[in-house]
Amino acid sequence: MEKNKPLILVVNDDGISSKGIRFLVELMCDLGEVYVVAPQSNRSGLSHAMTLNKEISVQQIKKNEFTCSGTPVDCVKLAFNKILPRKPDLCVSGINHGSNHSINGLYSGTLHAAMEATIHGVSSISLSHLSYEENTSFDPFGMIIKKISHDVIQNRLPAGVTLNINIPDIPYDHIRGVKLCNQGKGFWEETFELKNHTATHNNYLITGKFNDDKTDVSTDSWALHNNFISLVPVGLNTTSLNVFPDLKYLENDFT
Amino acid sequence: MEKNKPLILVVNDDGISSKGIRFLVELMCDLGEVYVVAPQSNRSGLSHAMTLNKEISVQQIKKNEFTCSGTPVDCVKLAFNKILPRKPDLCVSGINHGSNHSINGLYSGTLHAAMEATIHGVSSISLSHLSYEENTSFDPFGMIIKKISHDVIQNRLPAGVTLNINIPDIPYDHIRGVKLCNQGKGFWEETFELKNHTATHNNYLITGKFNDDKTDVSTDSWALHNNFISLVPVGLNTTSLNVFPDLKYLENDFT
Repeated sequence: MEKNKPLILVVNDDGISSKGIRFLVELMCDLGEVYVVAPQSNRSGLSHAMTLNKEISVQQIKKNEFTCSGTPVDCVKLAFNKILPRKPDLCVSGINHGSNHSINGLYSGTLHAAMEATIHGVSSISLSHLSYEENTSFDPFGMIIKKISHDVIQNRLPAGVTLNINIPDIPYDHIRGVKLCNQGKGFWEETFELKNHTATHNNYLITGKFNDDKTDVSTDSWALHNNFISLVPVGLNTTSLNVFPDLKYLENDFT
Repeated sequence: MEKNKPLILVVNDDGISSKGIRFLVELMCDLGEVYVVAPQSNRSGLSHAMTLNKEISVQQIKKNEFTCSGTPVDCVKLAFNKILPRKPDLCVSGINHGSNHSINGLYSGTLHAAMEATIHGVSSISLSHLSYEENTSFDPFGMIIKKISHDVIQNRLPAGVTLNINIPDIPYDHIRGVKLCNQGKGFWEETFELKNHTATHNNYLITGKFNDDKTDVSTDSWALHNNFISLVPVGLNTTSLNVFPDLKYLENDFT
Protein backbone atom coordinates (compact mmCIF):
# COMPACT_ATOMS: atom_id res chain seq x y z
CA MET A 1 0.00 0.00 0.00
CA GLU A 2 2.99 2.32 0.65
CA LYS A 3 3.28 3.25 -3.01
CA ASN A 4 -0.32 4.56 -3.07
CA LYS A 5 0.31 7.05 -0.27
CA PRO A 6 -0.08 10.67 -1.41
CA LEU A 7 3.21 12.54 -1.84
CA ILE A 8 3.21 15.90 -0.02
CA LEU A 9 5.71 18.75 -0.35
CA VAL A 10 5.95 21.03 2.70
CA VAL A 11 7.60 24.46 2.31
CA ASN A 12 7.52 27.83 4.10
CA ASP A 13 9.19 31.25 4.32
CA ASP A 14 9.90 31.44 8.06
CA GLY A 15 12.71 28.88 7.76
CA ILE A 16 13.17 25.17 8.39
CA SER A 17 13.24 25.52 12.20
CA SER A 18 10.09 27.59 12.65
CA LYS A 19 7.35 26.20 14.83
CA GLY A 20 4.79 26.53 12.03
CA ILE A 21 6.55 24.21 9.61
CA ARG A 22 7.44 21.65 12.29
CA PHE A 23 3.75 21.45 13.25
CA LEU A 24 2.69 21.17 9.59
CA VAL A 25 5.20 18.38 8.86
CA GLU A 26 3.81 16.30 11.74
CA LEU A 27 0.23 16.82 10.55
CA MET A 28 1.02 15.93 6.94
CA CYS A 29 2.76 12.69 7.95
CA ASP A 30 -0.73 11.42 8.86
CA LEU A 31 -1.87 12.03 5.25
CA GLY A 32 1.03 10.80 3.13
CA GLU A 33 4.76 10.66 2.46
CA VAL A 34 6.27 14.05 3.24
CA TYR A 35 9.22 15.93 1.73
CA VAL A 36 10.36 19.21 3.29
CA VAL A 37 12.35 21.89 1.41
CA ALA A 38 12.62 25.19 3.27
CA PRO A 39 14.90 28.22 3.64
CA GLN A 40 17.76 27.99 6.16
CA SER A 41 16.38 30.98 8.07
CA ASN A 42 13.58 33.54 8.00
CA ARG A 43 12.89 34.78 4.46
CA SER A 44 9.64 36.66 5.09
CA GLY A 45 8.38 39.37 2.70
CA LEU A 46 10.13 37.88 -0.33
CA SER A 47 6.97 37.41 -2.41
CA HIS A 48 7.76 35.55 -5.66
CA ALA A 49 11.47 36.51 -5.64
CA MET A 50 13.91 33.99 -7.12
CA THR A 51 17.71 33.93 -7.17
CA LEU A 52 19.23 34.90 -10.52
CA ASN A 53 22.94 34.99 -11.44
CA LYS A 54 23.97 33.74 -7.99
CA GLU A 55 24.50 30.24 -6.63
CA ILE A 56 22.12 28.76 -4.07
CA SER A 57 23.42 26.29 -1.52
CA VAL A 58 21.46 23.16 -0.64
CA GLN A 59 21.89 20.79 2.30
CA GLN A 60 20.12 17.56 3.20
CA ILE A 61 19.56 17.63 6.96
CA LYS A 62 17.65 14.37 7.39
CA LYS A 63 15.67 11.82 5.37
CA ASN A 64 13.31 13.72 3.01
CA GLU A 65 14.32 17.08 4.53
CA PHE A 66 16.40 19.79 2.84
CA THR A 67 17.33 23.44 3.42
CA CYS A 68 18.34 26.01 0.86
CA SER A 69 20.09 29.38 1.04
CA GLY A 70 17.66 30.87 -1.50
CA THR A 71 14.13 32.23 -1.47
CA PRO A 72 10.92 30.30 -0.76
CA VAL A 73 10.28 30.13 -4.54
CA ASP A 74 13.83 28.79 -5.08
CA CYS A 75 13.01 26.02 -2.57
CA VAL A 76 9.98 24.92 -4.59
CA LYS A 77 11.83 25.00 -7.92
CA LEU A 78 14.63 22.99 -6.29
CA ALA A 79 12.16 20.43 -4.92
CA PHE A 80 10.64 19.85 -8.36
CA ASN A 81 13.99 19.71 -10.18
CA LYS A 82 16.33 17.91 -7.79
CA ILE A 83 14.55 16.39 -4.81
CA LEU A 84 11.04 14.96 -5.28
CA PRO A 85 10.82 11.40 -6.69
CA ARG A 86 7.66 12.38 -8.67
CA LYS A 87 5.13 15.20 -8.97
CA PRO A 88 3.51 15.53 -5.52
CA ASP A 89 -0.23 15.26 -4.84
CA LEU A 90 -0.20 18.36 -2.66
CA CYS A 91 2.05 21.26 -1.70
CA VAL A 92 1.42 22.90 1.67
CA SER A 93 3.21 26.12 2.65
CA GLY A 94 3.47 27.48 6.20
CA ILE A 95 2.12 27.65 8.78
CA ASN A 96 3.13 31.30 8.58
CA HIS A 97 3.43 33.22 11.83
CA GLY A 98 1.32 36.27 10.95
CA SER A 99 -1.35 37.37 8.47
CA ASN A 100 -1.27 36.78 4.71
CA HIS A 101 -4.80 37.99 4.04
CA SER A 102 -5.86 41.00 1.97
CA ILE A 103 -2.93 42.82 0.27
CA ASN A 104 -0.45 40.94 2.53
CA GLY A 105 -0.55 37.97 0.16
CA LEU A 106 1.30 40.04 -2.44
CA TYR A 107 4.38 40.35 -0.16
CA SER A 108 4.13 36.84 1.24
CA GLY A 109 6.82 34.23 0.60
CA THR A 110 4.48 31.64 2.12
CA LEU A 111 1.71 32.22 -0.42
CA HIS A 112 4.11 32.60 -3.33
CA ALA A 113 5.96 29.37 -2.54
CA ALA A 114 2.59 27.62 -2.86
CA MET A 115 1.87 29.56 -6.09
CA GLU A 116 5.16 28.33 -7.58
CA ALA A 117 3.97 24.75 -6.97
CA THR A 118 0.67 25.70 -8.68
CA ILE A 119 2.72 26.77 -11.73
CA HIS A 120 4.13 23.23 -11.75
CA GLY A 121 0.58 21.86 -11.92
CA VAL A 122 0.23 20.79 -8.28
CA SER A 123 -2.71 21.56 -5.95
CA SER A 124 -1.26 23.97 -3.39
CA ILE A 125 -2.31 25.50 -0.10
CA SER A 126 -0.82 28.44 1.81
CA LEU A 127 -1.53 28.47 5.56
CA SER A 128 -1.14 31.46 7.87
CA HIS A 129 -2.18 32.16 11.45
CA LEU A 130 -2.84 35.79 12.37
CA SER A 131 -0.78 35.62 15.57
CA TYR A 132 2.82 36.83 15.35
CA GLU A 133 3.50 35.32 18.80
CA GLU A 134 6.13 32.60 18.74
CA ASN A 135 4.23 30.75 21.51
CA THR A 136 0.83 30.51 19.83
CA SER A 137 -0.46 26.95 19.85
CA PHE A 138 -1.53 25.62 16.47
CA ASP A 139 -2.70 22.30 18.00
CA PRO A 140 -6.44 23.06 18.12
CA PHE A 141 -6.40 23.83 14.37
CA GLY A 142 -4.71 20.57 13.38
CA MET A 143 -7.94 18.69 12.62
CA ILE A 144 -9.42 21.33 10.32
CA ILE A 145 -6.10 21.81 8.45
CA LYS A 146 -5.91 18.03 7.96
CA LYS A 147 -9.52 17.90 6.73
CA ILE A 148 -8.98 20.68 4.15
CA SER A 149 -5.68 19.14 2.98
CA HIS A 150 -7.29 15.72 2.66
CA ASP A 151 -10.25 17.15 0.70
CA VAL A 152 -7.88 19.01 -1.67
CA ILE A 153 -5.85 15.84 -2.29
CA GLN A 154 -9.10 14.01 -3.12
CA ASN A 155 -10.66 16.69 -5.35
CA ARG A 156 -7.63 18.65 -6.62
CA LEU A 157 -7.80 22.43 -7.04
CA PRO A 158 -8.73 23.98 -10.41
CA ALA A 159 -5.64 24.54 -12.64
CA GLY A 160 -3.81 27.81 -11.94
CA VAL A 161 -5.45 28.37 -8.55
CA THR A 162 -3.74 28.39 -5.13
CA LEU A 163 -5.71 28.28 -1.87
CA ASN A 164 -4.72 31.09 0.51
CA ILE A 165 -5.92 30.13 4.01
CA ASN A 166 -5.78 32.45 7.02
CA ILE A 167 -6.73 31.50 10.58
CA PRO A 168 -7.93 34.20 13.00
CA ASP A 169 -6.07 34.66 16.30
CA ILE A 170 -8.87 33.38 18.55
CA PRO A 171 -9.46 30.14 20.49
CA TYR A 172 -10.65 27.30 18.26
CA ASP A 173 -14.04 27.03 19.96
CA HIS A 174 -14.82 30.61 18.92
CA ILE A 175 -14.39 29.77 15.20
CA ARG A 176 -17.72 30.08 13.36
CA GLY A 177 -16.70 28.22 10.21
CA VAL A 178 -14.61 28.09 7.04
CA LYS A 179 -15.55 30.65 4.36
CA LEU A 180 -14.61 31.21 0.70
CA CYS A 181 -13.67 34.88 0.34
CA ASN A 182 -12.63 37.63 -2.01
CA GLN A 183 -9.27 39.30 -1.27
CA GLY A 184 -9.76 42.27 1.10
CA LYS A 185 -8.75 45.88 0.58
CA GLY A 186 -6.37 46.55 3.48
CA PHE A 187 -3.17 48.53 2.96
CA TRP A 188 0.02 49.34 4.85
CA GLU A 189 0.92 52.77 6.15
CA GLU A 190 4.71 52.62 6.27
CA THR A 191 7.15 54.50 8.47
CA PHE A 192 10.79 54.92 7.48
CA GLU A 193 12.69 55.05 10.76
CA LEU A 194 16.08 56.77 10.41
CA LYS A 195 18.61 54.48 12.15
CA ASN A 196 21.94 55.85 10.92
CA HIS A 197 23.24 58.51 8.61
CA THR A 198 26.51 59.72 7.14
CA ALA A 199 27.27 62.77 4.97
CA THR A 200 26.02 60.88 1.93
CA HIS A 201 23.74 58.08 3.12
CA ASN A 202 20.61 57.68 5.24
CA ASN A 203 19.84 54.23 6.64
CA TYR A 204 16.21 53.40 7.30
CA LEU A 205 14.25 50.56 8.83
CA ILE A 206 10.81 50.08 7.28
CA THR A 207 8.03 49.57 9.81
CA GLY A 208 4.31 50.06 9.38
CA LYS A 209 0.73 49.87 10.48
CA PHE A 210 -1.82 47.71 8.65
CA ASN A 211 -5.12 49.44 7.87
CA ASP A 212 -7.66 46.73 7.22
CA ASP A 213 -11.08 47.36 5.64
CA LYS A 214 -13.45 44.99 7.42
CA THR A 215 -16.72 46.38 6.01
CA ASP A 216 -17.17 44.20 2.88
CA VAL A 217 -18.73 40.85 3.91
CA SER A 218 -17.35 39.12 0.80
CA THR A 219 -13.72 39.62 1.88
CA ASP A 220 -11.18 37.71 3.94
CA SER A 221 -10.74 40.86 6.05
CA TRP A 222 -14.40 40.68 7.12
CA ALA A 223 -14.33 36.90 7.59
CA LEU A 224 -11.27 36.89 9.86
CA HIS A 225 -12.64 39.79 11.91
CA ASN A 226 -15.88 37.83 12.31
CA ASN A 227 -14.24 34.62 13.53
CA PHE A 228 -14.16 32.65 10.27
CA ILE A 229 -11.18 30.82 8.75
CA SER A 230 -10.82 32.49 5.32
CA LEU A 231 -10.11 30.67 2.04
CA VAL A 232 -9.16 32.83 -0.97
CA PRO A 233 -8.61 31.04 -4.31
CA VAL A 234 -5.70 33.03 -5.80
CA GLY A 235 -5.20 32.93 -9.58
CA LEU A 236 -1.90 32.96 -11.47
CA ASN A 237 -3.54 35.00 -14.21
CA THR A 238 -3.84 38.53 -12.81
CA THR A 239 -5.38 40.19 -15.88
CA SER A 240 -8.25 42.57 -15.05
CA LEU A 241 -10.47 41.60 -17.99
CA ASN A 242 -13.29 43.84 -16.73
CA VAL A 243 -11.34 47.07 -17.41
CA PHE A 244 -10.72 46.34 -21.12
CA PRO A 245 -13.58 48.65 -22.22
CA ASP A 246 -12.11 51.51 -20.12
CA LEU A 247 -8.69 51.10 -21.75
CA LYS A 248 -9.75 50.76 -25.41
CA TYR A 249 -8.38 54.30 -26.01
CA LEU A 250 -4.85 52.92 -25.58
CA GLU A 251 -5.18 50.46 -28.47
CA ASN A 252 -3.71 51.45 -31.80
CA ASP A 253 -3.66 49.80 -35.22
CA PHE A 254 -0.70 50.87 -37.34
CA THR A 255 -1.76 48.98 -40.46
CA MET B 1 2.93 77.13 -15.32
CA GLU B 2 5.68 75.08 -13.66
CA LYS B 3 3.40 74.08 -10.77
CA ASN B 4 0.90 72.52 -13.21
CA LYS B 5 3.44 70.18 -14.73
CA PRO B 6 2.65 66.50 -14.06
CA LEU B 7 4.86 64.87 -11.42
CA ILE B 8 6.36 61.56 -12.64
CA LEU B 9 8.15 58.88 -10.60
CA VAL B 10 10.59 56.72 -12.58
CA VAL B 11 11.74 53.42 -11.06
CA ASN B 12 13.17 50.10 -12.30
CA ASP B 13 14.78 46.83 -11.23
CA ASP B 14 17.89 46.79 -13.44
CA GLY B 15 19.51 49.54 -11.33
CA ILE B 16 20.01 53.31 -11.58
CA SER B 17 22.74 53.07 -14.27
CA SER B 18 20.92 50.79 -16.72
CA LYS B 19 20.36 52.05 -20.24
CA GLY B 20 16.61 51.45 -19.99
CA ILE B 21 16.03 53.80 -17.06
CA ARG B 22 18.34 56.52 -18.47
CA PHE B 23 16.32 56.48 -21.71
CA LEU B 24 13.02 56.56 -19.80
CA VAL B 25 14.10 59.51 -17.62
CA GLU B 26 14.95 61.57 -20.71
CA LEU B 27 11.59 60.75 -22.31
CA MET B 28 9.60 61.57 -19.19
CA CYS B 29 11.33 64.96 -18.80
CA ASP B 30 9.34 66.00 -21.90
CA LEU B 31 6.08 65.20 -20.07
CA GLY B 32 6.61 66.57 -16.58
CA GLU B 33 8.80 66.96 -13.52
CA VAL B 34 10.68 63.70 -12.96
CA TYR B 35 11.88 62.01 -9.76
CA VAL B 36 14.04 58.86 -10.00
CA VAL B 37 14.37 56.28 -7.21
CA ALA B 38 16.09 53.07 -8.26
CA PRO B 39 18.20 50.23 -6.86
CA GLN B 40 21.99 50.74 -6.72
CA SER B 41 22.52 47.73 -8.97
CA ASN B 42 20.64 44.97 -10.79
CA ARG B 43 17.80 43.56 -8.68
CA SER B 44 16.01 41.47 -11.31
CA GLY B 45 13.69 38.61 -10.37
CA LEU B 46 12.74 40.13 -7.01
CA SER B 47 9.00 40.31 -7.71
CA HIS B 48 7.17 42.13 -4.88
CA ALA B 49 9.91 41.44 -2.29
CA MET B 50 10.46 44.07 0.40
CA THR B 51 13.16 44.40 3.04
CA LEU B 52 12.02 43.45 6.55
CA ASN B 53 14.05 43.61 9.77
CA LYS B 54 17.10 45.03 7.98
CA GLU B 55 18.17 48.60 7.25
CA ILE B 56 18.11 49.98 3.72
CA SER B 57 20.64 52.61 2.70
CA VAL B 58 19.61 55.62 0.61
CA GLN B 59 21.78 58.10 -1.29
CA GLN B 60 20.88 61.23 -3.26
CA ILE B 61 23.08 61.24 -6.35
CA LYS B 62 21.76 64.35 -8.09
CA LYS B 63 18.76 66.71 -8.05
CA ASN B 64 15.57 64.55 -7.93
CA GLU B 65 17.59 61.32 -8.23
CA PHE B 66 18.11 58.71 -5.49
CA THR B 67 19.46 55.16 -5.16
CA CYS B 68 18.59 52.59 -2.54
CA SER B 69 20.23 49.35 -1.36
CA GLY B 70 16.83 47.63 -1.17
CA THR B 71 14.41 46.03 -3.59
CA PRO B 72 12.43 47.75 -6.38
CA VAL B 73 9.36 47.75 -4.09
CA ASP B 74 11.45 49.33 -1.29
CA CYS B 75 12.39 52.11 -3.76
CA VAL B 76 8.74 52.92 -4.41
CA LYS B 77 7.78 52.87 -0.72
CA LEU B 78 10.78 55.12 -0.02
CA ALA B 79 9.76 57.53 -2.80
CA PHE B 80 6.25 57.91 -1.38
CA ASN B 81 7.38 58.23 2.23
CA LYS B 82 10.59 60.27 2.10
CA ILE B 83 11.26 61.76 -1.34
CA LEU B 84 8.30 62.92 -3.46
CA PRO B 85 6.91 66.41 -2.70
CA ARG B 86 3.36 65.15 -3.43
CA LYS B 87 1.52 62.15 -4.87
CA PRO B 88 2.75 61.78 -8.48
CA ASP B 89 0.50 61.80 -11.57
CA LEU B 90 2.26 58.77 -13.02
CA CYS B 91 4.75 56.08 -12.07
CA VAL B 92 6.75 54.49 -14.91
CA SER B 93 8.94 51.45 -14.28
CA GLY B 94 11.68 50.24 -16.65
CA ILE B 95 12.50 50.03 -19.41
CA ASN B 96 13.35 46.47 -18.49
CA HIS B 97 15.98 44.65 -20.56
CA GLY B 98 14.06 41.45 -21.30
CA SER B 99 10.50 40.09 -21.32
CA ASN B 100 7.93 40.56 -18.57
CA HIS B 101 5.01 39.09 -20.48
CA SER B 102 3.04 35.95 -19.64
CA ILE B 103 4.11 34.29 -16.33
CA ASN B 104 7.31 36.40 -16.30
CA GLY B 105 5.38 39.30 -14.75
CA LEU B 106 5.06 37.28 -11.53
CA TYR B 107 8.86 37.26 -11.04
CA SER B 108 9.42 40.80 -12.33
CA GLY B 109 10.73 43.57 -10.08
CA THR B 110 9.90 46.03 -12.87
CA LEU B 111 6.20 45.17 -12.93
CA HIS B 112 5.94 44.87 -9.15
CA ALA B 113 7.57 48.26 -8.54
CA ALA B 114 4.80 49.75 -10.69
CA MET B 115 2.20 47.67 -8.79
CA GLU B 116 3.45 49.09 -5.48
CA ALA B 117 2.75 52.59 -6.85
CA THR B 118 -0.74 51.36 -7.86
CA ILE B 119 -1.30 50.34 -4.22
CA HIS B 120 -0.53 53.98 -3.32
CA GLY B 121 -3.32 55.09 -5.69
CA VAL B 122 -1.14 56.24 -8.60
CA SER B 123 -1.58 55.31 -12.29
CA SER B 124 1.40 53.09 -13.06
CA ILE B 125 3.04 51.58 -16.12
CA SER B 126 5.64 48.82 -16.40
CA LEU B 127 7.72 48.85 -19.61
CA SER B 128 9.81 45.97 -20.91
CA HIS B 129 11.60 45.31 -24.21
CA LEU B 130 12.00 41.67 -25.23
CA SER B 131 15.69 42.07 -26.13
CA TYR B 132 18.22 41.13 -23.46
CA GLU B 133 21.00 42.78 -25.54
CA GLU B 134 22.65 45.70 -23.77
CA ASN B 135 23.07 47.48 -27.14
CA THR B 136 19.42 47.41 -28.25
CA SER B 137 18.25 50.88 -29.27
CA PHE B 138 15.04 52.03 -27.58
CA ASP B 139 15.03 55.31 -29.57
CA PRO B 140 12.46 54.28 -32.23
CA PHE B 141 9.97 53.40 -29.45
CA GLY B 142 10.25 56.75 -27.68
CA MET B 143 7.27 58.36 -29.40
CA ILE B 144 4.81 55.54 -28.68
CA ILE B 145 5.95 55.26 -25.03
CA LYS B 146 5.47 59.01 -24.63
CA LYS B 147 2.02 58.83 -26.25
CA ILE B 148 0.82 56.03 -23.93
CA SER B 149 2.29 57.78 -20.86
CA HIS B 150 0.64 61.07 -21.84
CA ASP B 151 -2.74 59.36 -22.41
CA VAL B 152 -2.54 57.61 -19.03
CA ILE B 153 -1.73 60.89 -17.25
CA GLN B 154 -4.78 62.46 -18.94
CA ASN B 155 -7.25 59.61 -18.34
CA ARG B 156 -5.79 57.84 -15.26
CA LEU B 157 -5.94 54.05 -14.97
CA PRO B 158 -8.81 52.33 -13.13
CA ALA B 159 -8.11 51.93 -9.38
CA GLY B 160 -6.06 48.82 -8.52
CA VAL B 161 -4.86 48.25 -12.09
CA THR B 162 -1.26 48.45 -13.40
CA LEU B 163 -0.44 48.52 -17.11
CA ASN B 164 2.13 45.85 -18.07
CA ILE B 165 3.61 46.84 -21.47
CA ASN B 166 5.96 44.63 -23.47
CA ILE B 167 7.66 45.60 -26.74
CA PRO B 168 8.68 42.90 -29.24
CA ASP B 169 12.32 42.66 -30.33
CA ILE B 170 11.78 43.80 -33.93
CA PRO B 171 12.44 47.05 -35.82
CA TYR B 172 9.86 49.75 -35.10
CA ASP B 173 8.54 49.82 -38.69
CA HIS B 174 7.53 46.15 -38.36
CA ILE B 175 5.23 46.93 -35.41
CA ARG B 176 1.57 46.30 -36.35
CA GLY B 177 -0.03 48.15 -33.44
CA VAL B 178 -0.71 48.32 -29.70
CA LYS B 179 -3.04 45.63 -28.34
CA LEU B 180 -4.86 45.04 -25.04
CA CYS B 181 -4.17 41.43 -24.02
CA ASN B 182 -4.84 38.70 -21.53
CA GLN B 183 -1.80 37.28 -19.70
CA GLY B 184 -0.28 34.36 -21.66
CA LYS B 185 0.34 30.81 -20.47
CA GLY B 186 4.11 30.42 -20.93
CA PHE B 187 6.19 28.65 -18.29
CA TRP B 188 9.86 28.12 -17.43
CA GLU B 189 11.62 24.80 -17.62
CA GLU B 190 14.44 25.23 -15.11
CA THR B 191 17.84 23.59 -14.97
CA PHE B 192 19.80 23.41 -11.73
CA GLU B 193 23.44 23.51 -12.79
CA LEU B 194 25.77 22.04 -10.13
CA LYS B 195 28.63 24.56 -9.69
CA ASN B 196 30.28 23.38 -6.46
CA HIS B 197 29.81 20.77 -3.83
CA THR B 198 31.22 19.76 -0.47
CA ALA B 199 30.52 16.72 1.70
CA THR B 200 27.35 18.40 3.00
CA HIS B 201 26.34 21.07 0.46
CA ASN B 202 25.51 21.29 -3.24
CA ASN B 203 25.69 24.72 -4.87
CA TYR B 204 23.45 25.31 -7.89
CA LEU B 205 22.91 28.05 -10.43
CA ILE B 206 19.33 28.23 -11.70
CA THR B 207 19.05 28.62 -15.46
CA GLY B 208 16.12 27.85 -17.71
CA LYS B 209 14.29 27.82 -20.98
CA PHE B 210 11.05 29.73 -21.49
CA ASN B 211 8.25 27.76 -23.16
CA ASP B 212 5.78 30.26 -24.52
CA ASP B 213 2.28 29.35 -25.71
CA LYS B 214 1.62 31.60 -28.70
CA THR B 215 -1.59 29.91 -29.90
CA ASP B 216 -4.23 31.95 -28.02
CA VAL B 217 -4.87 35.22 -29.94
CA SER B 218 -6.19 36.95 -26.78
CA THR B 219 -2.80 36.76 -25.05
CA ASP B 220 0.32 38.90 -24.84
CA SER B 221 2.34 35.85 -25.95
CA TRP B 222 0.44 35.80 -29.27
CA ALA B 223 0.51 39.59 -29.69
CA LEU B 224 4.29 39.89 -29.20
CA HIS B 225 4.94 36.96 -31.54
CA ASN B 226 2.74 38.70 -34.12
CA ASN B 227 4.52 42.06 -33.95
CA PHE B 228 2.19 43.92 -31.58
CA ILE B 229 3.15 45.91 -28.49
CA SER B 230 1.16 44.17 -25.71
CA LEU B 231 -0.73 45.93 -22.89
CA VAL B 232 -1.95 43.76 -20.01
CA PRO B 233 -4.00 45.48 -17.26
CA VAL B 234 -2.79 43.67 -14.13
CA GLY B 235 -5.04 43.69 -11.06
CA LEU B 236 -3.99 43.85 -7.40
CA ASN B 237 -6.92 41.61 -6.51
CA THR B 238 -5.91 38.12 -7.62
CA THR B 239 -9.03 36.25 -6.41
CA SER B 240 -10.35 33.69 -8.93
CA LEU B 241 -14.04 34.41 -8.35
CA ASN B 242 -15.04 32.00 -11.15
CA VAL B 243 -13.87 28.91 -9.21
CA PHE B 244 -16.03 29.59 -6.11
CA PRO B 245 -18.69 27.04 -7.22
CA ASP B 246 -15.96 24.37 -7.65
CA LEU B 247 -14.67 24.97 -4.13
CA LYS B 248 -17.98 25.12 -2.23
CA TYR B 249 -17.14 21.69 -0.75
CA LEU B 250 -14.41 23.33 1.33
CA GLU B 251 -16.82 25.68 3.12
CA ASN B 252 -18.00 24.72 6.56
CA ASP B 253 -20.44 26.25 9.01
CA PHE B 254 -19.70 25.35 12.63
CA THR B 255 -22.77 27.06 14.09
